[in-house]
Amino acid sequence: MSSILRPEDLRPEEPASPTTAAPPPLGEALVEALDGPFHALRARLRREVLTADLVRDPTLDIAAAREWTTRQAQRFADGGYASIGYPRQYGGSGDATELPVAYGMLGYADLSFDVKVGVQFGLFAGSILTLGGQWHRETYLRDALTMRLPGAFAMTESGHGSDVQHLATTITYLPDAEEFEVDSPTVAATKVYIGNAACDARMAVVFGRLITGGTDHGVHAILVPLRDATGTPLPGVTIGDQGHKGGLLGVDNGTISFDHVRVRRRLLLDRFGGVDTYGAYHSPIRSQNARFFTMVGALVRGRISVGGSAAAAGRRAIALAARYALRRRQFPAPSGEGDVLLLDYLTHQRRLLPRIAEAYAYGFAHNQLLQQLHRWDDLESPDVRVERELETRAAALKVAQTRWAVDTVQAMREACGGAGYLTENLLTQIRQDVDVFTTFEGDNTVLQQLVAKELLVDYRDAWGDLDLLGMARATARSLGEAVLERTAAQPLISRMVARAQLRDEDGLPLERGWQVVMFEDRERHVLESLAHRAREAARARPEDAFAALNALAPHMLAASRTHTDRVVLEAFIAGIDDTQDGRAALLLDRLCDLWVMSTLEADRGWFLEHHRLTPTRSKEISARIDALCGELRPYVADLVDGFGIPEVLLDAPMLH
Amino acid sequence: MSSILRPEDLRPEEPASPTTAAPPPLGEALVEALDGPFHALRARLRREVLTADLVRDPTLDIAAAREWTTRQAQRFADGGYASIGYPRQYGGSGDATELPVAYGMLGYADLSFDVKVGVQFGLFAGSILTLGGQWHRETYLRDALTMRLPGAFAMTESGHGSDVQHLATTITYLPDAEEFEVDSPTVAATKVYIGNAACDARMAVVFGRLITGGTDHGVHAILVPLRDATGTPLPGVTIGDQGHKGGLLGVDNGTISFDHVRVRRRLLLDRFGGVDTYGAYHSPIRSQNARFFTMVGALVRGRISVGGSAAAAGRRAIALAARYALRRRQFPAPSGEGDVLLLDYLTHQRRLLPRIAEAYAYGFAHNQLLQQLHRWDDLESPDVRVERELETRAAALKVAQTRWAVDTVQAMREACGGAGYLTENLLTQIRQDVDVFTTFEGDNTVLQQLVAKELLVDYRDAWGDLDLLGMARATARSLGEAVLERTAAQPLISRMVARAQLRDEDGLPLERGWQVVMFEDRERHVLESLAHRAREAARARPEDAFAALNALAPHMLAASRTHTDRVVLEAFIAGIDDTQDGRAALLLDRLCDLWVMSTLEADRGWFLEHHRLTPTRSKEISARIDALCGELRPYVADLVDGFGIPEVLLDAPMLH
Repeated sequence: MSSILRPEDLRPEEPASPTTAAPPPLGEALVEALDGPFHALRARLRREVLTADLVRDPTLDIAAAREWTTRQAQRFADGGYASIGYPRQYGGSGDATELPVAYGMLGYADLSFDVKVGVQFGLFAGSILTLGGQWHRETYLRDALTMRLPGAFAMTESGHGSDVQHLATTITYLPDAEEFEVDSPTVAATKVYIGNAACDARMAVVFGRLITGGTDHGVHAILVPLRDATGTPLPGVTIGDQGHKGGLLGVDNGTISFDHVRVRRRLLLDRFGGVDTYGAYHSPIRSQNARFFTMVGALVRGRISVGGSAAAAGRRAIALAARYALRRRQFPAPSGEGDVLLLDYLTHQRRLLPRIAEAYAYGFAHNQLLQQLHRWDDLESPDVRVERELETRAAALKVAQTRWAVDTVQAMREACGGAGYLTENLLTQIRQDVDVFTTFEGDNTVLQQLVAKELLVDYRDAWGDLDLLGMARATARSLGEAVLERTAAQPLISRMVARAQLRDEDGLPLERGWQVVMFEDRERHVLESLAHRAREAARARPEDAFAALNALAPHMLAASRTHTDRVVLEAFIAGIDDTQDGRAALLLDRLCDLWVMSTLEADRGWFLEHHRLTPTRSKEISARIDALCGELRPYVADLVDGFGIPEVLLDAPMLH
Repeated sequence: MSSILRPEDLRPEEPASPTTAAPPPLGEALVEALDGPFHALRARLRREVLTADLVRDPTLDIAAAREWTTRQAQRFADGGYASIGYPRQYGGSGDATELPVAYGMLGYADLSFDVKVGVQFGLFAGSILTLGGQWHRETYLRDALTMRLPGAFAMTESGHGSDVQHLATTITYLPDAEEFEVDSPTVAATKVYIGNAACDARMAVVFGRLITGGTDHGVHAILVPLRDATGTPLPGVTIGDQGHKGGLLGVDNGTISFDHVRVRRRLLLDRFGGVDTYGAYHSPIRSQNARFFTMVGALVRGRISVGGSAAAAGRRAIALAARYALRRRQFPAPSGEGDVLLLDYLTHQRRLLPRIAEAYAYGFAHNQLLQQLHRWDDLESPDVRVERELETRAAALKVAQTRWAVDTVQAMREACGGAGYLTENLLTQIRQDVDVFTTFEGDNTVLQQLVAKELLVDYRDAWGDLDLLGMARATARSLGEAVLERTAAQPLISRMVARAQLRDEDGLPLERGWQVVMFEDRERHVLESLAHRAREAARARPEDAFAALNALAPHMLAASRTHTDRVVLEAFIAGIDDTQDGRAALLLDRLCDLWVMSTLEADRGWFLEHHRLTPTRSKEISARIDALCGELRPYVADLVDGFGIPEVLLDAPMLH
């Protein structure tokens, strides 16, 4: 590894012979690297879907924005793109991983459009495919995919936002009528924030507690017709319009409540649990808890898509701000040679370059997650462990990507000053739209605790129920050393670590093996200390149980965060290893250093507290960041070209 | 100081006799404490101005929003409030400090309204008062204060956003015609982001370079008529509408450019520099640089108001989120007794309580700044040192308050989950409106460097020009120990520090003296190390000068930040000391602990790197924060009542 990135290292190599094509520009090579195994589909979407049509006029009022969004979703369906990720008989390629690949890409365009198609073709049609049986698919899936049947995904309730397991809507079987009765017994059972509900949806996938003969079988999903052909709500269905929001004006979020609405028996999405005509319940999964997680888990694509879209929005904001910084000048240079380019200020480099590094880091991590999803899709038979790992990874990355996106878009708005605040320059709209990504498809704070729980489960691999108290008690059983399982590029990383461990404790910060060890060690220590505290909490008297568990929560957030960092680093390493173009790989290697140094700097309090960094080493890391910013500065244009964002989506007047 | 805050400590004392009035509720006592010396005016504004009329319907389109805002500003003027802070002959009380007191309060209401009145009555009318002479005041001030003469404040240019000293607009005196010619010689000289320009303004205070007989006298201001009585732009004046923005839709920001526009000689605002009929320049201030800073400094009220408004917006967001957390329940309690209140989760307390502590911290710091302004207003003769101190403080606090406000409103939006994203619940609109406060009235990154420069100036007290290179050279002259001057509550703080210094180095983190020493020591160390680096930078060869100074920038940001923290702590201590109600003082004392602990935790990397905290002590600080959150949890409702926000401005459906 060279210690200084020299321009000549990144010059295209001479073609081997006159007949060999010249290597692609650096930006293109980076696009291929960041697209990774999904390059073909992503390139196709760039070419065919991500056109100027998908830039919404941000001054449209709510009615016009909704109309525009519905029209774009219809065009998407008419173009045949809604079936991406569906089986061949429904017009897709049969590769289910393509769905989140595609929906993540749409985050480069208008996010209302992204969310609207996500609701219709991802959540609504996706539920029919994954939760329904053959009959549901044959009866409804084609119409869902053409938008002849606009649908909603009615999970969240007013009283239970993030707490899906405790939904209050009831789906009660009435054997005499051979019908279900769907009901919202309380105001708190009202479905809220439901996309497509306020205007468009004719039908909804409704989640509620399935009750037969007085027995509650837990949360299930059922198709419920909402509106007739004229768009009028059906009897017993009350729909509210949630109106103006902080963003995503094109998405018609609404409330739905049900007053003893009768639904035919067949409409229950019964792949994981159904009722025969006499009211007898049957399910291929015995445990109610396992069944719940299987059902919710089948929707993991939604969470992956949301993370991917948010990350794409963040990259778009960076590209806008980076290009602005490459043309905007402020304050005279001391040399007297005109004003200084924004990007030449170290403070500005510090604002932009670590974000660029993070963009690549999360991009590679997202690709790893998609590959993990692909392996899960290909499983012959269900594997609970594999499935939980996938869900944990998806939740962890959704949290990281959406947090990063919101903060990044804001930082980029500010980096463009007043120009960034003008709506025509796109940033404020991206900011407003991406905001809620931290909340929907699982509130980030709740998801982080889920991730931490799962890490404890893995750590001990000996848990019964997911109940926090039970978990704490189980942790108490025993504790010991556990080696973290590497999530990507295993042999390569092992070699790096082996090399690093041969050195003394003052290993080089720019040595990848040392970096991996730092991340792994921090994660293990945080997790072990969490497990230790959980064991103590389990000893609490019942009346102190809440307080004891409550005190664990900040440690759970830390466990989730440190785990995610490690997974992202492994993905970054794997992504560089898979990069074909030597110049791109060299640049990415430097960028990975910057990402690691920034991550260490941000958490240097922890590393110092735990004697993992000496004060001298810690200060050295900050100096390294400054140096890396300077080294990477000449490649900023290439690096943002490498995001592969179609030019029409970066057409801001401040860049003219 | 008690180590645990007991409910009985905060119970109202028994009235001494039946005829003595009962003490006020804790919330009211906190309002009085936070209002401080400005209680009377603030209470009056609450009662008379901050009514439900000042809640803008967030779904208004841009045209309707502008109309609404102009109407509200007119009502404000009609009510006689525009003259707050003006001399008696213009209807005010003669106390100039009242202006920023009032405009900061308006941040509780709609921020478009706040900015609009700030432009008209603060910047436009304020420039006439402070930069003009007797004739300007008599001719224009009354009309400006009644809005018969709507005006703009045209400083920022397209090519020079934050770099006012290098404005390109020219104001050239033509002796034959006895007129000035105002001109925008380049596109970069176009005035941009000018509030009131797009629709309303008939006249503008225009900043440009004053030129007489070929000599450039630097930046001056002149009144330039923009539109005729029908609203049509006058010949040579080109006005653009900057249209839709990321927020503040009610403010009509526009661009203005001048094509050799002729203006009568008398319209030059000539208090600090004028031209006689023959074109001879005269000024009471000899140095062009000093004159520039005097002129810009006269506008310090604008910067103080902006910081105050942003902080008010942050407090309003906290009040909304805190009340939501006191009614919203999620996930069942382990005890089985229903769902847990959001505010009972430690993670949620960690999101809210440090923000509440910061709200009070910045509130007290703002009061101190206003008192400093008041002392400056009362000066018999100008004092450059006092003026620069005021400007430095205003810049430092503007940065801190606006950064805090943007981050806080966002955190509070997220703390309310999906409900926070619904426009009806106010948070997203506050968020969109407050966003640009980090950019206008001085971009935060630029201001922080200004603050650091001034700190170096103070530190050495031996500077010529404000030019960075010159400063660096001057720093190089000598370096030595310097004691930081305390900015508030001097004798009290000295006593606290003296007590703390008697103890060994493991002083108690909850002892105020120890806290002060930690903050002072950090500031001094950062400043000394910056001065040292500046000295080295001054030795750079001319061609390396930019690189050498550029490398200082991150240290300058740190110097600004650590200085601000110390000033805020001193203000917090003074604010508690001035609090009359014993219960309120006790609570504020705890809150100050929480603020200090949070501030130390956030920068614990630095304290550990510099051996100011041991790893053990550092971890202890995090534990203290958790404990303080629990201790303060029962008083959250009182603490947000203490912000003194009129109920009508907190009327969100999520709280019904």
